[in-house]
Amino acid sequence: MPEPTGVTRALARYSLTPSADLPAAILAQAARAFLNHVGCTIGGLVEPGSQIAMAQADLFSGARHATVLGRRTRLDALHAAYINALQSCIQTFDDTHLASVIHPTGPIASAMLALIEHDPACDVDGTEFLGTLSFGLEIACRVGAVLTAPGSGLHLGVFTTGIAGAIGAAAASGRLLGLDEQRQTWALGIAAAQAGGLRVSHATMTGGLIPALGSRIGLSAALLAAQGFDCSEAGLEGRNGLLPVFAPGARADDLVTYLGERFEMADLAYKPYPCGIVIHPAIDACLALATERPADEAIEQVRLRVHPLTLQLTGLKHPLHAMDAKVSVGHWCAAALLRQRAGMTEATDEAVHDPDIKALRDRVDATADASLGRDEAYVELTLASGRSLSCHIPHARGSRERPLTDAELAEKFLKLVEPILDAEPACALLDRCWSLPAIRRGGLAALLAATVPPC
Amino acid sequence: MPEPTGVTRALARYSLTPSADLPAAILAQAARAFLNHVGCTIGGLVEPGSQIAMAQADLFSGARHATVLGRRTRLDALHAAYINALQSCIQTFDDTHLASVIHPTGPIASAMLALIEHDPACDVDGTEFLGTLSFGLEIACRVGAVLTAPGSGLHLGVFTTGIAGAIGAAAASGRLLGLDEQRQTWALGIAAAQAGGLRVSHATMTGGLIPALGSRIGLSAALLAAQGFDCSEAGLEGRNGLLPVFAPGARADDLVTYLGERFEMADLAYKPYPCGIVIHPAIDACLALATERPADEAIEQVRLRVHPLTLQLTGLKHPLHAMDAKVSVGHWCAAALLRQRAGMTEATDEAVHDPDIKALRDRVDATADASLGRDEAYVELTLASGRSLSCHIPHARGSRERPLTDAELAEKFLKLVEPILDAEPACALLDRCWSLPAIRRGGLAALLAATVPPC
Repeated sequence: MPEPTGVTRALARYSLTPSADLPAAILAQAARAFLNHVGCTIGGLVEPGSQIAMAQADLFSGARHATVLGRRTRLDALHAAYINALQSCIQTFDDTHLASVIHPTGPIASAMLALIEHDPACDVDGTEFLGTLSFGLEIACRVGAVLTAPGSGLHLGVFTTGIAGAIGAAAASGRLLGLDEQRQTWALGIAAAQAGGLRVSHATMTGGLIPALGSRIGLSAALLAAQGFDCSEAGLEGRNGLLPVFAPGARADDLVTYLGERFEMADLAYKPYPCGIVIHPAIDACLALATERPADEAIEQVRLRVHPLTLQLTGLKHPLHAMDAKVSVGHWCAAALLRQRAGMTEATDEAVHDPDIKALRDRVDATADASLGRDEAYVELTLASGRSLSCHIPHARGSRERPLTDAELAEKFLKLVEPILDAEPACALLDRCWSLPAIRRGGLAALLAATVPPC
Repeated sequence: MPEPTGVTRALARYSLTPSADLPAAILAQAARAFLNHVGCTIGGLVEPGSQIAMAQADLFSGARHATVLGRRTRLDALHAAYINALQSCIQTFDDTHLASVIHPTGPIASAMLALIEHDPACDVDGTEFLGTLSFGLEIACRVGAVLTAPGSGLHLGVFTTGIAGAIGAAAASGRLLGLDEQRQTWALGIAAAQAGGLRVSHATMTGGLIPALGSRIGLSAALLAAQGFDCSEAGLEGRNGLLPVFAPGARADDLVTYLGERFEMADLAYKPYPCGIVIHPAIDACLALATERPADEAIEQVRLRVHPLTLQLTGLKHPLHAMDAKVSVGHWCAAALLRQRAGMTEATDEAVHDPDIKALRDRVDATADASLGRDEAYVELTLASGRSLSCHIPHARGSRERPLTDAELAEKFLKLVEPILDAEPACALLDRCWSLPAIRRGGLAALLAATVPPC
């Protein structure tokens, strides 16, 4: 069984190269990803799914070395990775690699933080932390991109974040553990051989388990490999490995093309709205139209034209609860038009059951148009007077062409964190996150402590 | 998104029906599966992969409510399910559902035993234990059969035991927890949405992680569902669910055809040799030829004709270590011919490096013949004299047509358990396992205690 190309080994080798060789822009991207991650993970603890999973983790936890962001209860590192990754994604407010629509930072950063608290020998300074996060993100994004490339044959129902996130978490954890190339190669393979996740989980609590399990699998894989637990050296490309099984048309060599020169993780975006990213251009359009429409004129109909993926992933017409809303483009159009905002309050059971939103949602007519970009939307309102208003969003907020500014990211962070920590500690934590590159070895503990509300 | 057929719900409903309705032959099959499981799980603890995984589990374990078979160190229930399932399969000596080539008892029985020790309210008498195991096995075998049926489109590289085992473990655990139909339906979906596993792990330590993680996922899924953690109600058949993603050609309705009347788990077999089951007919032939060949006549060549799956799964020509041997039909032919046996001593590094076995292995010429059954083999020896001997095995030992007798199962059990527990405790444990149907509620604890060597 020859395994000729060796891309798993090449990725392992790359993930162990000096972080000083990473471009400054990549480290800056990692810093933005980390800030967004901390905010989402703290904000996500309020969800019922987080609470149930946390109760189980608390019941089964071993030695409580690791912080759960936003909570006073600590967990063993494997459970902490799991719960933090779950909290990071459960409000679907986390980051997105635009080409593959994976959400990589949750599983990777959660594994790293847990490992550093578990084993102080793995602690690093802030710059090396961002470098390690970058290697994990780059590998996850490359795996995601190759899995989802046109012609790969990947089924749309595969929740790719679980797979790419596990492999990225293994790479980052293995680097922190100081694995040699052989063991790092095994770590990636151990993660790839176990990873999975299906989109049937979307819009239910189970959606949060997929990145959660990916984080745990990745951290556990690196810890096992560190002890000599072996695996194929070609977990990604080998016979019966990740790519041949999940995406038989995938080009394995693309995993390593221009490695260290071009960065897939440059393509990470941060969501301004807590719902599926393919919904965002429609929200932008509706928010614009909401300010334009005279307040006394009712809306007769909403006509929406979007990329086909928007309806495939988020075409749910009649959401029944908050989780459903995540995958209902119609809900967000109605909510944005009527409330002139699209934040966490629109992602609630209350908003889903709001009779006005419900009535308008039923009058949203969405059609797919393959000529549009994924971040593009046309919305046309017909008003009671017969007059119509229209808006075209060529690129959504938070897209590659219109990235959120640092100020917008900070605003999002504070909106998520203030309800948990109060205003002043939230601001202090924001400052610590922005100062991460300057944190010395040993200083991450203080940052983690600052995520926890006082007794 | 309508989810019309409801087979996930139908399986959930079935798994909660009275075990008194199960045929006696099915309960007897479950008893044989359990005995084989206990023997394999105790025997498997000696493997290096078991030791490394156990050390990690020990480090991260929570409250130590649950037994690891054969070990004095206890673990929390989720880790115990994981490690016991790993030990059960790591010597590839576990049971096999012949139609699908899944190995279901390890993940399911491991989850059940761990849950009963975790929560005494879940304890049952021996007959109900075997009934619950039967429901878990039947669901796992049905999932395996539908996934692997001709035309399903499943990639051969999917290690189906991880998926079917997780779903079966969820069903059995959910029944022990007393879940209602709604929560049992979620439990199956939570397990299905997370389950995975790739055969790139075969012949490495990572192979053991797939059933291990499946067991943990299944137990965790039932515990989460018990607390109201939700999921799609159509995790198996729904849009982006298990069958559409992994096996787009699968017939979901076959999951429930003749449910309660025909039993897939009737088709469970127990391995007489510790290697891939598709190797077994070739071993039978070689053992027969080994007694026929005059001891003073060397073997020039071994010609082997087998079902194509044998070479696809176990065609490795040059094994380098014990794990490789599991998937090398040539190794087992050579070892059986030269040593006139095919047990754990032939599944070692020593046997792989034996110069005589190595030399003969290189003279094994295997060809695939699609007209043969999977349990069929032709072997022809050419001796130094030019004379040839041949043997045709129409059905291997341990196959559907030639199941192991209870006495053979007991012999296998003792060979595995005696080196760990010594002869007398091994016999006592064997008696306890055979007496399982008569054990009263509360009595499983004594059986589990009898798996552990005295201090």
